[in-house]
Amino acid sequence: MMTGVSPDVPLSKSEYKSQMETLTLRLGELQRECYSRGIPVIVVLSGPSASGKGLLVGKLVMSLDPRGFRLHTQSSSTNDAQLHPFFWDFWRRLPPKGALGIFMDNWYRPLFHRAKRFKSATAQTDWFRRINAFERQLADSDYAFAKFYLHVSKREQKKRLKKLAADPNTSWRVTKRDLIMLKRFDRYSKNADLVLESTHTEVVPWTILPADNWRFASLTMTRTLVETMEKAVSGGTSPRAARPALTKRASKQGALRLADFDLSKSLDRDRYEKDLDRLQGKLRRLQNVAYRKRIPIALAYEGWDAAGKGGNIRRLVSGLDPRGYRVIPIAAPTGEEKSHHYLWRFWKNAPRNGHIFIFDRTWYGRVLVEKIEGFCTPVECERAYTEIVEMEQEWAKSGALIMKFWLHLSKDEQLRRFKLREKTPHKLWKITDEDWRNREKWDDYAQAVDLMLKRTNSKYAPWIVVESNCKLHARTKVLKAVVEQLEARL
Amino acid sequence: MMTGVSPDVPLSKSEYKSQMETLTLRLGELQRECYSRGIPVIVVLSGPSASGKGLLVGKLVMSLDPRGFRLHTQSSSTNDAQLHPFFWDFWRRLPPKGALGIFMDNWYRPLFHRAKRFKSATAQTDWFRRINAFERQLADSDYAFAKFYLHVSKREQKKRLKKLAADPNTSWRVTKRDLIMLKRFDRYSKNADLVLESTHTEVVPWTILPADNWRFASLTMTRTLVETMEKAVSGGTSPRAARPALTKRASKQGALRLADFDLSKSLDRDRYEKDLDRLQGKLRRLQNVAYRKRIPIALAYEGWDAAGKGGNIRRLVSGLDPRGYRVIPIAAPTGEEKSHHYLWRFWKNAPRNGHIFIFDRTWYGRVLVEKIEGFCTPVECERAYTEIVEMEQEWAKSGALIMKFWLHLSKDEQLRRFKLREKTPHKLWKITDEDWRNREKWDDYAQAVDLMLKRTNSKYAPWIVVESNCKLHARTKVLKAVVEQLEARL
Repeated sequence: MMTGVSPDVPLSKSEYKSQMETLTLRLGELQRECYSRGIPVIVVLSGPSASGKGLLVGKLVMSLDPRGFRLHTQSSSTNDAQLHPFFWDFWRRLPPKGALGIFMDNWYRPLFHRAKRFKSATAQTDWFRRINAFERQLADSDYAFAKFYLHVSKREQKKRLKKLAADPNTSWRVTKRDLIMLKRFDRYSKNADLVLESTHTEVVPWTILPADNWRFASLTMTRTLVETMEKAVSGGTSPRAARPALTKRASKQGALRLADFDLSKSLDRDRYEKDLDRLQGKLRRLQNVAYRKRIPIALAYEGWDAAGKGGNIRRLVSGLDPRGYRVIPIAAPTGEEKSHHYLWRFWKNAPRNGHIFIFDRTWYGRVLVEKIEGFCTPVECERAYTEIVEMEQEWAKSGALIMKFWLHLSKDEQLRRFKLREKTPHKLWKITDEDWRNREKWDDYAQAVDLMLKRTNSKYAPWIVVESNCKLHARTKVLKAVVEQLEARL
Repeated sequence: MMTGVSPDVPLSKSEYKSQMETLTLRLGELQRECYSRGIPVIVVLSGPSASGKGLLVGKLVMSLDPRGFRLHTQSSSTNDAQLHPFFWDFWRRLPPKGALGIFMDNWYRPLFHRAKRFKSATAQTDWFRRINAFERQLADSDYAFAKFYLHVSKREQKKRLKKLAADPNTSWRVTKRDLIMLKRFDRYSKNADLVLESTHTEVVPWTILPADNWRFASLTMTRTLVETMEKAVSGGTSPRAARPALTKRASKQGALRLADFDLSKSLDRDRYEKDLDRLQGKLRRLQNVAYRKRIPIALAYEGWDAAGKGGNIRRLVSGLDPRGYRVIPIAAPTGEEKSHHYLWRFWKNAPRNGHIFIFDRTWYGRVLVEKIEGFCTPVECERAYTEIVEMEQEWAKSGALIMKFWLHLSKDEQLRRFKLREKTPHKLWKITDEDWRNREKWDDYAQAVDLMLKRTNSKYAPWIVVESNCKLHARTKVLKAVVEQLEARL
C-alpha cells in the first residue's frame, strides 16, 4: 500500500517542473478522452488537517482543465446531509459521465482522525463493509477511482500547526480539535492505518503521499491519476465488467411467489368506505408522530400495467398533510439521469427525515423492464440485486421505514381494463402501444417478478404482494399494511 | 382584487362535493394537457399562520394527480439559501415544463406579517419592484401563475390560535411570533393589504380567499386554478408573447464599442512573467479576505472563438486556493436545462458567499449565439437585455462582485489561430466546423456584441473589453482588473 514512500534525495525544482510538464500534457489528453468516452473519474484526498491537502490539490488542478473538474470541500455540505442517509450527500455529488470529481470532503469523514474509539469492533468493520460496498458499486459501473492519503509525522504536524498559529492571518485555521489530535497522535495514526488497510481493495487502492516532501507527493499524485485514467480509457474489456455479483441475499423473509396469491379477494363498497375513512384517519395521526420523531418513510410501488397504482396512491395520500409527503414518478431516465449510475436518481430522492416519499415505479425497473428489454446486460442485472439490497440497507441504517408493494393482477383482468380504457374517452390517455407490447411478455415479467421477490425481500424492506383484481381490496390492503408497520415502529 | 369575497349563505356539503367533482375531473385533464404542451404552472399560497393553509392545500392536491405536482413548504429550505442571492432558493425549485409547483414557502416570505416596518418607503417599494420583476420574467416565458392569499379576521385568528394551544398535540404549533402577530394584528393587516395591492398585476393577480369559509375558499382556489390553466392552454397566441420589453437600461457607464479598442497592445514575456507572479500572489491574498468577508464573486468570460478564454482562466485561477473557486463551463443546454427558463441554469449557479464562480461562456449566449442563430425570437431576445440586467442586479443586491470580460480579437488573428490549431496535433480538438461557421457571421456577432455592451454595461456588473491579440497582455489585464476591483471593495 505504501506506494508513495519518499525518496532519500529531494527532487530539484527543475526536475519537478519538467516531469510535471509531461504529466500535465498527458492529463489534458486523458481528460478529453474520458470526456468523449463518458468515463467519470473520482479522486479522494484525505489526511489530517494542516497536512497540506490544499496545497496538493492546488498543484493537481493546475494540471487539469479547470472546466472539467469539480472540487468538493467540507464547506460545500450543509445540514441537509444530516436529514438523509449517510451516502446521500456523496451520491448526489458524484461526477456525471466524462467529468472528474475531487472529494476532499468524502465518505471517510467519520473514520479518520477519531478521538474516540468505535463502540465495538463490529461497528467499525460495519463501516468498512459499507464504504467498500459503495466504492465497489461505482467501480463496477466503470467509475475510475484514485484515493490518496497524505501522511504526516508527529514532528512535522507539530511544526505545521505552530507555524499556522503564529501567523495572525492563519491562526484561525488551528482548531481545538487539531490540538487534541496532536496530543493523541499515536492513537490517531493507529486508527488511520487500520482504516487504510481495511479499505485498500484491488479495485480501489490507496496511494499514500508523504506530506514532508510536497514535490514528490505532487508528482506521485498526478502520475497515479494519469495511470488510473489510462487504465480506464484502455479498459474496454475490463475484467471488472465480467466479475460475477456477490452472492449476497437479503435476510430470509419467507419465500413470496405470485402464484400463491388469491386474486379473487375482494371488498364491497360499503365496507370499503368505512375502512378507508378509518385507515386514512389513522395514517394521518401516525404521519404526525413520524414527523415529530423524524422517521423517514419510503413506499415503493411496482405492479402490472393497469393494476391501479395511480388510484391506490391517491387513496394513500388523500388523508395526509401534503407538506409531509412527496410522490416521485419514475419514467424512463432523462438526459442528466442517463449520465449517472442507474441508482443515482433514486439516491438523490432518498427519503428525508420525517417525510413520506412515495415512488410510483422504482429502482426495480433495473431487474424488470431493463432486464427484459435488454437495456442492461445480464451481468449488470445480476449485480443489481445486490446493489439494490445494499441501497435499501443504507436507507434502513438511517432509520428509514421501507415498504415495497407489488400490485398483482390476473392476465384476464388486465385485458378487461385495457379494453375499458380504450372505450372510455377520459381514460384513453392511460393506454399506449407499449402497454400492449409489455402484455405480450407477461410470462417473462412474471418470472422476473418472482426472482425479484425472492432475492430482494428483507425484514427492513419487505415486499407486500397486493391482490388488485379488486381495487377496493388493494387500496385498503396497502393502507392497512402501512398503518400496521408504522404502529409497530412508533 | 377581492375576487374571493365570501357568499352570505354557506355552501352545503353536497353542493361542495358535486362542484368539486366537476372541477377535479377538469383539473386532471388540464394537468395532462399542460404536461403534453410543456406549460409549467406555479401556485402561490400565502396567509398568516393558523389561517388554514395546510387544510386548503390538502383539498387542492386531492384534485391533482399526485405524480404531477411538487409542494414547497418552509421546512424544505435550508441554510444554503442564506449563502446565496434571495431568489436563488426559488429559481432552483421552479417546476420544469409541464409540471406544477405549489409554493407555500415563497418569495413573499420577507414581506407579509412583518412586525417591524421597513427602514424606508424606498426599501419597501424596492421589494415590490424586485418581486414583480421576478414574476414578470416567468409570466413572459409562459409560466401559468395563480396566487392566493388566505384572509383571516382578528376574531377568527384568535379563536384558531386558542384552539391549537388548548390541544397538547397541536400546542407546539403556536409560536411566540404568532402571539406577537395577534397583538399587532391591525398593523399586520395594513401591511398585508399594501403588499397585496403592490404585487397585484394584470399578468399575475392575487385571489383572496376567506379563511372562515373553507368550502368556499377551497372551491374558489380550485376554480381559479382551472381558469388559469385553461387560459394558459388556449393561449397559443398569448398577447404576452408580443408584449414589448421594458425599455430599461443599466446605469450609464460610458459607451463601450469594440472598434475603440487597440488590438495591437502587447506585453513581452519577461514583463509578463513578473506581472503574472505578482498579480497571482495578490489575488490569492485577496481571495482569503473575500472568503472571510463572505463576498460572492462572479467572473463572466465571453469572447471570440480562439480568443484564449481557456488559457486566460487557467492563469486567473492557478494562484488561487481551489477550495474557494469553481469554473462553470457553459455549453448548449441539456435536457433538464431545456425544460426550464433559459436563466434557470445560471441562477442555479449563482455565486455562493465567499466563493469565486467563473463562467466560461455565460447567460449572454441569449443575445449572441441564440439571437444570431434564431434559437430565440426577436421579442425574446429584446426582453433578454432587461432580464439579464435584472439578474445581475439581484446578484449584486446580495453583495456579489460581478465582472464581465469580452476577449476581443482581430479577424486576422482568429484566422491565424484557427490554422495553427489545425496544424498542431494536440490542439486539433479545439477547432470544429462550428468555429468556421461562426467566423462567417463575424459582422453579425460584432454588431450583437456592441449592442450587448451598450445595453448591459453597469456599475455593479461592468464589462471589460480585453484586447487579446496578445495573450500575455490579455491574461494580465484580466488579473489586474480583478485585483483592482477586489482591492477597491475590500
